[in-house]
Amino acid sequence: MEREQALQIVKPQLTEHRYQHTLGVMETAIKLAGKYGADIKKAELAAIFHDYAKFRPKDEMRQIIEEQKMPAILLEFNSELWHAPVGAFLAEKEAGIDDKEILDAIRYHTSGRIGMTLLDKVIYLADYIEPGRHFPGVDEVRELAENDLDRALTQSMKNTIQFLMKKNQPVFPDTFNAYNSIVQNSGG
Amino acid sequence: MEREQALQIVKPQLTEHRYQHTLGVMETAIKLAGKYGADIKKAELAAIFHDYAKFRPKDEMRQIIEEQKMPAILLEFNSELWHAPVGAFLAEKEAGIDDKEILDAIRYHTSGRIGMTLLDKVIYLADYIEPGRHFPGVDEVRELAENDLDRALTQSMKNTIQFLMKKNQPVFPDTFNAYNSIVQNSGG
Repeated sequence: MEREQALQIVKPQLTEHRYQHTLGVMETAIKLAGKYGADIKKAELAAIFHDYAKFRPKDEMRQIIEEQKMPAILLEFNSELWHAPVGAFLAEKEAGIDDKEILDAIRYHTSGRIGMTLLDKVIYLADYIEPGRHFPGVDEVRELAENDLDRALTQSMKNTIQFLMKKNQPVFPDTFNAYNSIVQNSGG
Repeated sequence: MEREQALQIVKPQLTEHRYQHTLGVMETAIKLAGKYGADIKKAELAAIFHDYAKFRPKDEMRQIIEEQKMPAILLEFNSELWHAPVGAFLAEKEAGIDDKEILDAIRYHTSGRIGMTLLDKVIYLADYIEPGRHFPGVDEVRELAENDLDRALTQSMKNTIQFLMKKNQPVFPDTFNAYNSIVQNSGG
């Protein structure tokens, strides 16, 4: 699927603010893919669709998680996590995206997972550092992303875990596992 | 088993420094057990034996973990974690401690676990805040422990997770799970 067609499918699903974010993720993902040797077309498409389900009603997302037998533990955690796996499902069902790598990058773009693929990492990180993002720590991750994908990723996960812990919120196990998996394999 | 007999069994297993730490954990555990309604005799005994295996050779600990079919994932993580489950095993085998609650409190005193018992919490926290401990954050946890066992525990786990993340070290899943389990059940 070409960029323009993909954007036309996604745009009506998003607010204007979130659409601008999506364009930022797309540009950043393309740059990261070029720098680190990921498939640029796949990165582009995964980025465009990464928030496809962001504004679906909670009830619809819950129903899809149950009916599609996605990990039930999702329902015990913040619904902010749901749009990623639900988005992967709907990008396939409604938009016909059938590339497993792209769908996985969408599915794990919020939580991460053990053994993230290069494309998973590119989308996760692009979502974190795209130019529209402004929060404490993002500049440090942007700098790390210039030279070391895994260090940038590790730092972004640390920030996320720390942010949640400060608020006494639970951390989705995939995120902990993704952090462990990366520092154990790369030394962080 | 009475205190004096237990201390006599444990003392030769430890350095003088670690023995003093054990006495501190014992006193703190007894106080916490009194305050929060745990069994004081069990807290005393679990505290005395909590570091029983601390100075066993790594090879012996590895062998016990393998032979006793303890979770193999232990071997992928820092050997600092091993003395807790190995200590539970040896406290039973060599010293005849056969109370499951006491053995569990020894087993999980370093990692924590999902659904920690009151005794688990008392020993974990006593080990963290006994008077001989001096490190950033310990005073805050001591203060929390005066009024709220779960908040103190949550804070100590946050500190541990943060400490490990700063060093780019992996975090044992039981610790993450223990943190999640407590904040999900008590609001942290």
